[in-house]
Amino acid sequence: MPRVVVLGGGFGGIGAARKLRDADVDVVLVDKQDYHTFQPMLYQLATGVIDTSAIADPLRGLFHDQPNARVHQGTVEAIDPDSRVVTFADREPLEYDYLVLALGAEAEFFGVEGAGEHGYPLYTLGDAVRLKEHVVTCWEEADRNPSLIADGMLNVVIVGGGATGVESAGALGELYRNVFSDDFPDIAQEHARLILVEAGPALLPMFKKDIQDYTQRALRERGVEIMLGEIVESVAPTRVRLKSGTVLKAHTLVWGAGLHAHPIAKALGVELQRGSRIPVGLDLRLADRPEVFAVGDIAWITDAKTDDVLPQLGSVALQAGEHAGENIARLVDRKDAMPFKYTDKGTMAIIGRGAAVLQTRRGHTMKGRTAFLAWGAVHLALLSTGEERTKAVVEWTWAGLTHERSGRIVVSDIEPTPARR
Amino acid sequence: MPRVVVLGGGFGGIGAARKLRDADVDVVLVDKQDYHTFQPMLYQLATGVIDTSAIADPLRGLFHDQPNARVHQGTVEAIDPDSRVVTFADREPLEYDYLVLALGAEAEFFGVEGAGEHGYPLYTLGDAVRLKEHVVTCWEEADRNPSLIADGMLNVVIVGGGATGVESAGALGELYRNVFSDDFPDIAQEHARLILVEAGPALLPMFKKDIQDYTQRALRERGVEIMLGEIVESVAPTRVRLKSGTVLKAHTLVWGAGLHAHPIAKALGVELQRGSRIPVGLDLRLADRPEVFAVGDIAWITDAKTDDVLPQLGSVALQAGEHAGENIARLVDRKDAMPFKYTDKGTMAIIGRGAAVLQTRRGHTMKGRTAFLAWGAVHLALLSTGEERTKAVVEWTWAGLTHERSGRIVVSDIEPTPARR
Repeated sequence: MPRVVVLGGGFGGIGAARKLRDADVDVVLVDKQDYHTFQPMLYQLATGVIDTSAIADPLRGLFHDQPNARVHQGTVEAIDPDSRVVTFADREPLEYDYLVLALGAEAEFFGVEGAGEHGYPLYTLGDAVRLKEHVVTCWEEADRNPSLIADGMLNVVIVGGGATGVESAGALGELYRNVFSDDFPDIAQEHARLILVEAGPALLPMFKKDIQDYTQRALRERGVEIMLGEIVESVAPTRVRLKSGTVLKAHTLVWGAGLHAHPIAKALGVELQRGSRIPVGLDLRLADRPEVFAVGDIAWITDAKTDDVLPQLGSVALQAGEHAGENIARLVDRKDAMPFKYTDKGTMAIIGRGAAVLQTRRGHTMKGRTAFLAWGAVHLALLSTGEERTKAVVEWTWAGLTHERSGRIVVSDIEPTPARR
Repeated sequence: MPRVVVLGGGFGGIGAARKLRDADVDVVLVDKQDYHTFQPMLYQLATGVIDTSAIADPLRGLFHDQPNARVHQGTVEAIDPDSRVVTFADREPLEYDYLVLALGAEAEFFGVEGAGEHGYPLYTLGDAVRLKEHVVTCWEEADRNPSLIADGMLNVVIVGGGATGVESAGALGELYRNVFSDDFPDIAQEHARLILVEAGPALLPMFKKDIQDYTQRALRERGVEIMLGEIVESVAPTRVRLKSGTVLKAHTLVWGAGLHAHPIAKALGVELQRGSRIPVGLDLRLADRPEVFAVGDIAWITDAKTDDVLPQLGSVALQAGEHAGENIARLVDRKDAMPFKYTDKGTMAIIGRGAAVLQTRRGHTMKGRTAFLAWGAVHLALLSTGEERTKAVVEWTWAGLTHERSGRIVVSDIEPTPARR
């Protein structure tokens, strides 16, 4: 029976593997973690609105009901497309008849000095937990030693005015102004600055002007300062230097400025597109490698319907992954692979409770409470299991109604002992 | 205004602080963590039934509605009862007019070689997370490298036949036989042994014989082997040696064999009781220190109603803490302190879904589904906030109904960078 190896357990990989459920193939899905992360809500985990398990599903559990699929934990080391073998850093190599590359991306620091060492990206579950624990730890440290406050202990610089930056800034604003204000009644909020830095002239550059203006207003209402046309030059543990010469005191830097594809992309011997993404044909296959598909953030995908290059979004990854799975099933049945047509559900960003923006590719826009609800509807459809879907809805709705958040603790006495693992 | 310093944010400390809400005092509660842990459900966190936030409340949030209370994070270093000052490793000293010692306990390894280094105690939230991540990591490692299975990679030795050992063994049994059996269909369950080792002749020594027999049966049904009359001699990372000469292959050792009081107890200059516990009078005050109270696992408390020494249970800690708070309020009002009378709700242990045991001090017993429900009722009453109570009920009930558990993931790429914190 042909073996399909799916690398990556994000939206793309899961979509591909599940669409192969009824195909006469063995599916082997490998991810370096043993869980799937619901990335669109990462910033909510980072700000304590929801709990880890609300956005992380054990990958193995997602395939209990799919007898032709196996899930393994493993870190990809190399791919040999000629002999059709994937090798791993930590397990036996796997031969494949079909390969789905869905390994996602990593933060791109564009060579900014210190950004990689001291910045907090927000792409993985680990990133979100680290950011949350760091922010809470800063507040506890400021409470123990108030002289640190004037040094910028509680200030956060958020870099990048795209969706990640806007969502993080808005969520931090609500955490600071609604929760920490009660938790730390002795600390004045004006000593806890949130500064969103964007190189271009506007936030959310892909959105229309009225949406951009609304976003600025909504962030300012949440206590976020906005600096446009400013570029980060270097990052130190407690200081952020801008190209304009301004130095911001901040012990936390959230890096939402860019991504590049998983480094395996560079080892495939194909010419890559912007962000090191792997270009694929309309049927999602690599040129000259008709048995290799790439989907999700690692891929440079052109929509067969509009000829546009598709953005790096969860819904694009899921639909492309499903399409790759369907195409493999067709190829196994000796049918032709079909071109991928994306069903646009709009691009969105959540600024805070009841405040969101949405824009479709045709230019329709929505903002405020309506967009907030639309966000919920679209993203809940992305969730993979009934249980998690329910839990996320409950936690999110609860947080939206009550301002309470339970996730803001630091399990700070945990130091994993690598020797033991 | 008199200042009451409460050291420790467990059941005892919270009980004391909250009962002082209407007293003319300033309350300062200090804990080394910034959260309260609902310890009776720790083993459920360790086995992935529930999520961290279901049993951990941000301590500061519990006192938003109590204007005379402040919460701080700090690690106690020393207490000078003559000058009435507490010093901390990480913050300014605090003077007190009244002091409530509610710092709990730590695992007691009785000098067993290697137990402290390689064993997993189960007393703090960090303990539970570490144990869970270790167990899941062992299974993933066995999946990557099946030759480790014969070396005991998946075997767990649980030491101690008291409530902690019985509850952990039962929960691991259900995790292994109901969940991992589906997650890892290629690994045979007989290669994943769970062995409960107890030095005495029976499990749950404080319970009646029929309860003990029921417990043994219920654990065996969950795939747990029981070794009675066996004592652990030494522990290595992958082997456990018993005094009888038997060597058990196991990469995990859960230590549920005993506790001793927080080390500050030894620095008070009073003669301690078994487990280094601080003896208190019937009004919960230290002899010769009428302004110092001790409650919870750190204290050796005699019930004024029955003259019995009370066990180290959450309900004892909460009631004693509340009583200490009431006594301080009385003393501030120039009234006399009152003796503490414990309202017994029974001692309980959960063996698994629908299987529990309960015994009151008068000798009434319950087992099976009835005891399971009684456990729920008693322990939900201990929970501190509405939100968490709801969430714990939901998660626990859901897990009880569906066999699904979402908490079994490992955020394994998290290595806290101490330099940054």
